[in-house]
Amino acid sequence: MASDVIVAVDMMGGDFAPSAITGGVAEALERFGDAYRYLLVGDQEVVRKGLVELGVNAEDSRLEFVHAPEVVGMNEHPVKALREKRNSSIGVAMDMVKAGRAGGVFSAGNTGAAVGASFLKWRMLEGLARPGIATVMPGEKEPWILMDSGATVDCTPSVLAQFAIMGDLYAKQTLKLANPRIGLLSNGTEEGKGNKQVQDAFGLIKNIPGINFIGNVEGHDLFCGKVDVVVCDGFVGNVVLKTSEQLCKSMSNMIKGQVMQKFWWKMGGLLSKGAFKEVKKQTDAGEVGGAPLLGVKGCCVIGHGNFQAHAVANGIRAVGELIREKLNDRIVEVIHQYALDSIG
Amino acid sequence: MASDVIVAVDMMGGDFAPSAITGGVAEALERFGDAYRYLLVGDQEVVRKGLVELGVNAEDSRLEFVHAPEVVGMNEHPVKALREKRNSSIGVAMDMVKAGRAGGVFSAGNTGAAVGASFLKWRMLEGLARPGIATVMPGEKEPWILMDSGATVDCTPSVLAQFAIMGDLYAKQTLKLANPRIGLLSNGTEEGKGNKQVQDAFGLIKNIPGINFIGNVEGHDLFCGKVDVVVCDGFVGNVVLKTSEQLCKSMSNMIKGQVMQKFWWKMGGLLSKGAFKEVKKQTDAGEVGGAPLLGVKGCCVIGHGNFQAHAVANGIRAVGELIREKLNDRIVEVIHQYALDSIG
Repeated sequence: MASDVIVAVDMMGGDFAPSAITGGVAEALERFGDAYRYLLVGDQEVVRKGLVELGVNAEDSRLEFVHAPEVVGMNEHPVKALREKRNSSIGVAMDMVKAGRAGGVFSAGNTGAAVGASFLKWRMLEGLARPGIATVMPGEKEPWILMDSGATVDCTPSVLAQFAIMGDLYAKQTLKLANPRIGLLSNGTEEGKGNKQVQDAFGLIKNIPGINFIGNVEGHDLFCGKVDVVVCDGFVGNVVLKTSEQLCKSMSNMIKGQVMQKFWWKMGGLLSKGAFKEVKKQTDAGEVGGAPLLGVKGCCVIGHGNFQAHAVANGIRAVGELIREKLNDRIVEVIHQYALDSIG
Repeated sequence: MASDVIVAVDMMGGDFAPSAITGGVAEALERFGDAYRYLLVGDQEVVRKGLVELGVNAEDSRLEFVHAPEVVGMNEHPVKALREKRNSSIGVAMDMVKAGRAGGVFSAGNTGAAVGASFLKWRMLEGLARPGIATVMPGEKEPWILMDSGATVDCTPSVLAQFAIMGDLYAKQTLKLANPRIGLLSNGTEEGKGNKQVQDAFGLIKNIPGINFIGNVEGHDLFCGKVDVVVCDGFVGNVVLKTSEQLCKSMSNMIKGQVMQKFWWKMGGLLSKGAFKEVKKQTDAGEVGGAPLLGVKGCCVIGHGNFQAHAVANGIRAVGELIREKLNDRIVEVIHQYALDSIG
């Protein structure tokens, strides 16, 4: 039976699009069987050709094509590009969800464009003010969620409180935690630490019923298993995300550089290479397949621009899971209950 | 001839005080010859005893003792502690500078207490609104400066502009750069990115004459040699500092953990151990000896709470250099000129 979970895929978004994306679709067809159907949004001719080259039957009943020849480049100004390119693959993919032809979107393209298009075309879920990106981050022991990692740069305290609620629900779904520890990112752990917005958010989050708020957390608490969901505004979250990505890369370069300095170190490096590959795998964003944009009326998972086929397939699965788990319904329920409690 | 550069040392501040601090003084006496004199502020009996145990002659003419038996603990609320403990070592050390008996202070104690005490007792330099901590950070190729790493949590755009000026002057002094590249930390490199305060600061910093402003920088630009001074508020800076410290630790733990998994990996790890020690040394905050608190009327270098003797000695030298280079005089000059230009 044909699946009713339909994922719209932005075929043109990402540093290695369309080839990494067609590759991801090919892998998804193989790995996920009949779990999903795919609405492939992009330059139809290019996409079909790419699939055929990979040995995919373009007439596969799980595939449907939507022509959208324009691309929002990785460095384009998102809102401007969306306005000027009415047939951009990301914009049309969002339209498909609005029209009921797909349940959600995967894109490895321009993050700002995905956030902007979903906000403009889908609008916010009832009761929610601003979207947030929930990124699963690697950790020494367990992964954790950074919420928001870049969708909403200026956040009021109540937006941070909504992020806490959405992060809690997403951690329950994706990290399979019964009672995730929610922390508010600050410059110290004591209550009262933080900038004005964090200080005010503390009071709000403390009073959300049913979440396991462990108070303020600081940079020292990340990566080491002390917190499951780290709540912050999209400015701070984006700085944390990118700084962490770069520091991993720089440390790895420093280690490689040093190991090459002496013969015995080089030998040791060769012998233990497998261990480093394991660590790299554990810290690879592609294993998760991207981060959902939460708070909007629709499911959208945003992949890293540098995603290759395997990561794209994981991203497609992430969209499928969001659709199937009906995360948005639960977000609306909890936010509604919270609003009622706040009034009462 | 006795040196006229006198460093007041907070003997009671830090996780390993007083022993790490007496150890640092002992090392400084040995390493720096007659370059400095030392005003040792703390519980006099304890400090003297500690020095004698290390084989230091407590009657050394370079040493002077000031009794201040109270300690502000690492987790105490700074302002409250300063109010209640009139004879705290950090507070009395600051008093000594105000009274002209020392040129600056080194402390590895409670950062908030050092910031608070200097702000209350010394006040700001003329024309400056808020203090900032300029932390020298390790990099793949070259070190860089994070300004502010935690002194002023809520910053107006003009405070960020002042941080750019102070960071520029400190980079010239300590990194020996003729024309340091100043970047404003944001969530993307394009002009217009950032929260409101960063967007407004961009316009101000762009118009500061004589500094090499390279525009917005993002997390991906740190650690890899693209920028010399990263300007941000103390909230974001503190998050970046602590997140980076923890990520280095967590990555190192992950690598160690993996290397232990297989016999050959373990052998390789043993062979290349020296390379890892080199990387650890390159990323060790103790080599720099702490971070100066800039903007206040006096020189104060704040060490990491976990500093051991060698790092403390480096911190004492860092204070000595600040005093000798008269950094504060240059800050006042440039700020004054900038203010004149802004009016004109």
